[in-house]
Amino acid sequence: MKEIIISMLKERGIEIKKIAQLVYELQKPYIDVTLEDAIINVEKVLEKREVQNTILTGLQIDILAEEGLIKEPLLSIIRRDDSLYGIDEILALSITNVYGSIGFTNFGYLDKVKPGIIGEIDKAGKTTEKVHTFADDIVSGIAAAACARIAHANEKDHK
Amino acid sequence: MKEIIISMLKERGIEIKKIAQLVYELQKPYIDVTLEDAIINVEKVLEKREVQNTILTGLQIDILAEEGLIKEPLLSIIRRDDSLYGIDEILALSITNVYGSIGFTNFGYLDKVKPGIIGEIDKAGKTTEKVHTFADDIVSGIAAAACARIAHANEKDHK
Amino acid sequence: MKEIIISMLKERGIEIKKIAQLVYELQKPYIDVTLEDAIINVEKVLEKREVQNTILTGLQIDILAEEGLIKEPLLSIIRRDDSLYGIDEILALSITNVYGSIGFTNFGYLDKVKPGIIGEIDKAGKTTEKVHTFADDIVSGIAAAACARIAHANEKDHK
Amino acid sequence: MKEIIISMLKERGIEIKKIAQLVYELQKPYIDVTLEDAIINVEKVLEKREVQNTILTGLQIDILAEEGLIKEPLLSIIRRDDSLYGIDEILALSITNVYGSIGFTNFGYLDKVKPGIIGEIDKAGKTTEKVHTFADDIVSGIAAAACARIAHANEKDHK
Repeated sequence: MKEIIISMLKERGIEIKKIAQLVYELQKPYIDVTLEDAIINVEKVLEKREVQNTILTGLQIDILAEEGLIKEPLLSIIRRDDSLYGIDEILALSITNVYGSIGFTNFGYLDKVKPGIIGEIDKAGKTTEKVHTFADDIVSGIAAAACARIAHANEKDHK
Repeated sequence: MKEIIISMLKERGIEIKKIAQLVYELQKPYIDVTLEDAIINVEKVLEKREVQNTILTGLQIDILAEEGLIKEPLLSIIRRDDSLYGIDEILALSITNVYGSIGFTNFGYLDKVKPGIIGEIDKAGKTTEKVHTFADDIVSGIAAAACARIAHANEKDHK
Repeated sequence: MKEIIISMLKERGIEIKKIAQLVYELQKPYIDVTLEDAIINVEKVLEKREVQNTILTGLQIDILAEEGLIKEPLLSIIRRDDSLYGIDEILALSITNVYGSIGFTNFGYLDKVKPGIIGEIDKAGKTTEKVHTFADDIVSGIAAAACARIAHANEKDHK
Repeated sequence: MKEIIISMLKERGIEIKKIAQLVYELQKPYIDVTLEDAIINVEKVLEKREVQNTILTGLQIDILAEEGLIKEPLLSIIRRDDSLYGIDEILALSITNVYGSIGFTNFGYLDKVKPGIIGEIDKAGKTTEKVHTFADDIVSGIAAAACARIAHANEKDHK
């Protein structure tokens, strides 16, 4: 299942390495971490069933919106990434949550500032036929969860 | 928008009065409430934007699964209402939440015991071509939110 | 830390075996499970940092309310387990959540029906000087999380 | 109750106007809003029962930690604002949530960047005898909820 998820993310323009880059940048100031560590932690997040279900569901909704298979008025709400539509944030929080509530802060920060790959897919969603309403929150959620995982692991190393 | 939601629920076999019946049964032991009060409170829940977005999204996923427009492996997961798939619960909690966390308990109770209309649509989802994976949690969420709304309103009356 | 948590629960009248009993009763209809399995799974839940923090915090608030060290108006709200006070439910959900959202349903069911030890401590909280406003939700949360853990593990066994 | 909450916040060094300042800065780029509007919206957030309960509980824990009335090991965890302690984030999310999930993003952003009053109380918590482990998340939560309220109200005005 993990391989399905990774290739599904790739088809939507999201590479593991680019998510790991976000994790690396966020954790570098606090913890001695390499990009390689970040990649390993992102992959660990993607092994979680709850995370897999959320990614499958969120990316599927984006794709169906692109294909015009979702009915109105929901289709337009998703296509324009309506600022009062919060279902993408709720789904992403269920990813962030898998290593505890300490991930909420990084999720919100990433979703607001939109660095790296998050900004790229958000921009593509707003300027092309692509729909990335769920995708950008999903990436923020995965990166925030990986940061939380690193924080937990780092603490164990120091005991 | 509220009228769109009510007619969408009706198309999926869910009448407001049947949701209100659940609310009435749950609140009767604690508060002097009529079925009419319950109906009014269910309708108030359906006016909330967050609730509307969740219903639009959840019922749309059920319909797309029925029509076979969702890709595998997600299609099978949703069709069989996989016990490890929790996205329906997450979405429903965002409904339950609109009048605060006191709704969580009634949500879980309804989703477990499946009284009235909840049991009806759950059974139809398991024995017919219909897919009600999201629908039953949505009904539990609406009923739990309406109970929370009544509890808040009742308290104000006594001050 | 796990040992501190277990002895803290015991001081509040909550034995692991009694939580496991709830888990066993809930899972028995679906999965081939023993009381011993249930105990092991409850103990695994108690190893999670997020769970430990929630238990430490929730039981501490109960104790401080018993000792009268919390200021008004919060003291009275907690002592009478006010039905509009939902902070105990929120904290418990962070326990339930550690094995994903599939635990929400069992949490709500347990918190509503209050079987076994949950009913015992709830009753003690309402009829004695004891305050168990957070304790009963914590027990429901631990039991629901253990059920979710068993469901995940069972699925792996069948693959 | 709202007046109790406002004076409790003030005693902890948190003035409504300073929270409103955060709201104003966040919303200014998107919506035609004044500082006065922001103050009104912060006050509306503080009228919500769920928000009041969270503030009462969170600030009470900070105060009890300052007074040394919380037992170990929880006392040290709260006093040093341990990075793996996420109960403060969970409580704050229940504030953020009152106007829907669209508030999550601003909450995380504020909690990470710590502008204005959030940075002030965070710094005081880390450099003086004061404990503001819950206070900074509570302020982020209130500000994020007020932003969500403004976004909802603004949309109605344009219909």
